[in-house]
Amino acid sequence: MYDSEETKQIRLERRSPFHWRVTFDLPPLNIFGPANMPQLNAIVAAIETDARLKVVVFDSAVEGFFLTHYDFLAKPEDSSSLPPGPTGLQQLPDLLVRLSRAPVVSITSIRGRATGVGSELALASDMRFASREKAILSQWEVGAALVPGGGPMARLPRLMGRGRALEVLLGADDIDGDLAERYGYVNRSFPDAELDAFVDALAERIASFDKKAIAETKRLVNVASLPADSEIAPEWDAFIASLARPAAQERIKLLMERGFHKPGDVETRLGYHVGQLGG
Amino acid sequence: MYDSEETKQIRLERRSPFHWRVTFDLPPLNIFGPANMPQLNAIVAAIETDARLKVVVFDSAVEGFFLTHYDFLAKPEDSSSLPPGPTGLQQLPDLLVRLSRAPVVSITSIRGRATGVGSELALASDMRFASREKAILSQWEVGAALVPGGGPMARLPRLMGRGRALEVLLGADDIDGDLAERYGYVNRSFPDAELDAFVDALAERIASFDKKAIAETKRLVNVASLPADSEIAPEWDAFIASLARPAAQERIKLLMERGFHKPGDVETRLGYHVGQLGG
Amino acid sequence: MYDSEETKQIRLERRSPFHWRVTFDLPPLNIFGPANMPQLNAIVAAIETDARLKVVVFDSAVEGFFLTHYDFLAKPEDSSSLPPGPTGLQQLPDLLVRLSRAPVVSITSIRGRATGVGSELALASDMRFASREKAILSQWEVGAALVPGGGPMARLPRLMGRGRALEVLLGADDIDGDLAERYGYVNRSFPDAELDAFVDALAERIASFDKKAIAETKRLVNVASLPADSEIAPEWDAFIASLARPAAQERIKLLMERGFHKPGDVETRLGYHVGQLGG
Repeated sequence: MYDSEETKQIRLERRSPFHWRVTFDLPPLNIFGPANMPQLNAIVAAIETDARLKVVVFDSAVEGFFLTHYDFLAKPEDSSSLPPGPTGLQQLPDLLVRLSRAPVVSITSIRGRATGVGSELALASDMRFASREKAILSQWEVGAALVPGGGPMARLPRLMGRGRALEVLLGADDIDGDLAERYGYVNRSFPDAELDAFVDALAERIASFDKKAIAETKRLVNVASLPADSEIAPEWDAFIASLARPAAQERIKLLMERGFHKPGDVETRLGYHVGQLGG
Repeated sequence: MYDSEETKQIRLERRSPFHWRVTFDLPPLNIFGPANMPQLNAIVAAIETDARLKVVVFDSAVEGFFLTHYDFLAKPEDSSSLPPGPTGLQQLPDLLVRLSRAPVVSITSIRGRATGVGSELALASDMRFASREKAILSQWEVGAALVPGGGPMARLPRLMGRGRALEVLLGADDIDGDLAERYGYVNRSFPDAELDAFVDALAERIASFDKKAIAETKRLVNVASLPADSEIAPEWDAFIASLARPAAQERIKLLMERGFHKPGDVETRLGYHVGQLGG
Repeated sequence: MYDSEETKQIRLERRSPFHWRVTFDLPPLNIFGPANMPQLNAIVAAIETDARLKVVVFDSAVEGFFLTHYDFLAKPEDSSSLPPGPTGLQQLPDLLVRLSRAPVVSITSIRGRATGVGSELALASDMRFASREKAILSQWEVGAALVPGGGPMARLPRLMGRGRALEVLLGADDIDGDLAERYGYVNRSFPDAELDAFVDALAERIASFDKKAIAETKRLVNVASLPADSEIAPEWDAFIASLARPAAQERIKLLMERGFHKPGDVETRLGYHVGQLGG
């Protein structure tokens, strides 16, 4: 059922005028690349401008993957040629900072891997809840000689402190739902069977509140907590530059030989595999 | 025993020249309003200027309530006509920032509800300890179409990170002692039977230390951790503005019909009730 | 075996060109003073400038002590006469900020007491892991009428929030491995039998990654998380000034009478003893 290009998409469901659901349905791995940027960008624009929307939940329809790493099969020029967004930032960081600032509450419900882009989207959203058994978060990039590009160096230390942020980023390993909660990588982890009920109830609750009170309160929290765009900007440039270096090309090639970008052990245990590429 | 206006007060007990206790005794609910502002202001002024005082503990004499929400039966002009304090901020944020900066250690011992103002006082104090079974913290205001006014948008993200702060503020729900500890809303929660002994021992310990070393160390921590007053100021203005809007008036009216400001289920489960007011 | 001055040292072991180990071997207590500054300074300079090094682990060879407090038997002028370091800061804060900024990952493996200087070194390093049973962290200085001098007022609130930082600094008590993890004082605590294997594996893993990706990622985290040197500078000055005051001289004298600077109960339960010196 997941084999047609046409069915691959980021789905937007309007549960009510106040409560939307965005579902990543890019089987088999929920890999995100330049081809998916326009669709996510359009969704963020709709979130930003809708007059009645109060809360949006991001989740996944793909077993095992919330949203995983960037698409390394895409041509590099497909990434580097994307025009900057309205903030002046490159497209991915642009749409992420716009989500953080939107006058709407964004909640990520993480089941499966949130690796790289998936982690970055979760970090840019307002709240993160995870399946204790099935969520895996990671910033794996340093393990492939890459610098992460979507804001985690600016956002992780503000959530969990410098020490744990450096462990996530420089250890580049898989973080399970339990450790993600202890580190503050997510708000809370729930037994998998309870996650959906919790997130649905919270979203419906917020959807019942007053939009202006939500938006003003969030705006004041943003003043106290969001990094400046100037702190986000260098990350994407560093990612693109790192991608062109021989060290990254060599490691990505080794990962490809192991089965990267195909269903299998590399994708489900990426943290383990980047630790096997040698010095 | 709690029915006379004359017995309602904020009591200041000097346990020693070095260690004071401030007890909220405003039965039956420890609601805080413009009428209580001068008394708390005088206490903060005494804390700021006493030459020997080293530590002050805030607690409650009212079963079930540490210090709860603002008094919505008070006339709005009683709040809006209060003169600004010495910092130039409005009275409530003014006395809270002065408490944070005072050369004295402030500890809140939370048993019962610390909702709205009670949470804001706790957040402005230097340390917070809670009864695991009996403490409830919340910023319930968004649930009534209000914007909180006493600094939590500036203070919560610095304590617990942006995601958990947004959940507290936009979920507007009751947070128990266990979750308050996991989120860093309080330093620690203790079994109710152990809370007083811990807080007393810590306060006595600090009272035995050197005032100058305490004051200098706290001052340097403040440099690293306190929000600027300019970040606090807009919160009170946003609260007063939100209070005048029809959405808040309607929700407060609905809460009143359910029993707000009277002993009973609305006051003891305010988080639940603001979730029942509809969209 | 630990009685010769010649064996007292800070040992540097090059496990590989990419992975070094620095071991505090200053028996019997791993007390750190002005005499040890040049050696640690030389090690930090080597860490900063080595072209191939990726990760350095700090640990201890002395049972019961990771690295403990400053040497109060040293002449005060030995501390105050040390020339400032390359950053313009005094020697101890200088070498600590240089460690934080070095393009190399620093990990502290804490077994035994990390009190005062030991805690400050741990806080300046990139990641901290502790023995659940055997680690004790503390900033005990306020208990002796001193102001800590090596950066903890700037660093602790950024790791654990203002409230818990003030409890550590103004409570001045011993913090065990379990509480250190709950507060974010360390990344994680492990059962003592598992600590070394975890730290070794993490260090070897990072040593297998690309140095440039490590260094760039850390540099971007630093932008988001390190205090400015101007925030660190006043702490050392405040420490030196506090050391000269009668209140500190009296308390250090009382501690000496109890056995400070000698193996025994004062050194192993310093938090308890500073609470017994009276008001």
